[in-house]
Amino acid sequence: MKSQNSTTIELKDGERIDDLQRNGYGIIQNPEKFCFGMDAVLLSGFCQVKKGERVLDIGTGTGILPILLSAKTEGAHFTGIEVQEESADMAKRSVAMNGLSERIDILCEDINKCSGVLKPESFQVVVSNPPYMIGTHGLKCESDQMTIARHEILCTLEDVIREGSRVLKDKGRFYMVHRPFRLVEIFDTFRRYHMEPKRMRLVYPYVDKEPNMVLIEALKGGRSRLTVEKPLIVFESKGKYTREITDLYGY
Amino acid sequence: MKSQNSTTIELKDGERIDDLQRNGYGIIQNPEKFCFGMDAVLLSGFCQVKKGERVLDIGTGTGILPILLSAKTEGAHFTGIEVQEESADMAKRSVAMNGLSERIDILCEDINKCSGVLKPESFQVVVSNPPYMIGTHGLKCESDQMTIARHEILCTLEDVIREGSRVLKDKGRFYMVHRPFRLVEIFDTFRRYHMEPKRMRLVYPYVDKEPNMVLIEALKGGRSRLTVEKPLIVFESKGKYTREITDLYGY
Repeated sequence: MKSQNSTTIELKDGERIDDLQRNGYGIIQNPEKFCFGMDAVLLSGFCQVKKGERVLDIGTGTGILPILLSAKTEGAHFTGIEVQEESADMAKRSVAMNGLSERIDILCEDINKCSGVLKPESFQVVVSNPPYMIGTHGLKCESDQMTIARHEILCTLEDVIREGSRVLKDKGRFYMVHRPFRLVEIFDTFRRYHMEPKRMRLVYPYVDKEPNMVLIEALKGGRSRLTVEKPLIVFESKGKYTREITDLYGY
Repeated sequence: MKSQNSTTIELKDGERIDDLQRNGYGIIQNPEKFCFGMDAVLLSGFCQVKKGERVLDIGTGTGILPILLSAKTEGAHFTGIEVQEESADMAKRSVAMNGLSERIDILCEDINKCSGVLKPESFQVVVSNPPYMIGTHGLKCESDQMTIARHEILCTLEDVIREGSRVLKDKGRFYMVHRPFRLVEIFDTFRRYHMEPKRMRLVYPYVDKEPNMVLIEALKGGRSRLTVEKPLIVFESKGKYTREITDLYGY
């Protein structure tokens, strides 16, 4: 049992509450299964959600993006869709614990059924931190929570982009974090679903290393012209974050 | 009159010879018209030309890429194609001046006629530093040498990629330098002509600024997987090149 904001929240075996350093919000996670990573935090900093906008997070996991974005932006409403029951359940309890039930809905659904559950062209913003790895090559177990979050077992890059495009209004924005090795495919898939990549930022662990993440904003119905932003460098030296990263984490 | 490598070279009005800091080679340029920039030098460092390979430079200008690559690599033969007579003429005289007539051919031709002049699938490598700017918007004069080198007046991005793909052998490599704002279109066009972007490097003037150039390697008939390399930073501080840049220039 744990109490915050006058709501009593039940923690299950192995679960813990991590402080998000924003508005006193916390998140329920099970470190043996899956914890959010830096990619979600960087994406929350890259997204531009305006006052009053409606936001969908495709593959929300334990709800990290809706919770962070509700703290960082004036977005009116956030919906997180997640196929894994255990993660969706943690997300729902985190939303309640933070007193965010009015602003955040968590749906436990297959994202390929988005169109059935969510009205077409009803969101101004879609965000997603989807599984990065192609297929199931080399995997021993395809059913555990971490594997499903990281590999394209239950949804592919194309599923995420296609469903996102359907629920986005014209001139709506799609924000995604992914791995640079799939950049060509990501651009190509966005374009096939009538979204134009407009802004991109590469995340380099060190100034002299290859990037390991890419942040992309695509505009539904946009014209071709990409702004590549200054590099996002994570570490100044071993173990020492750059100023931009510590600011993002709210330390 | 100027003499180098026992060849007598005629310099025309306004022309000068610049030292390339490689093998004692020089290049004839007219600073009132067009001089090669850092983009050509960076592309010459990004290209990987192997021993014995045949290389085509599309839009060679005054021949900077074939001359630099002949100094830096063991490529067997280099062809530069250039539609502007005045530039092609300077390129031919630079090749003769450097004693490179056996290894470098300069053709004064419209690149859209490449296929008529050059055998299909006859090169292992194509390089290009094409005009960056779309169309002729805002231009007063469409005929001067510098404008043609910088704007898509006589050839477009698609022309360069289509013709390059035709003359490349299967698994041949295309190396290009361009502006990041056209990255999505560049990837898309390469794919339409059966070339897969495999390697990319962004050039940032300073570590905290947007990139102003992008270097791309595409593989004819390649499978989808992009390596994004570490950032190429030009200036350490105002007026002071990074070590990588001074090495590239051979200072």
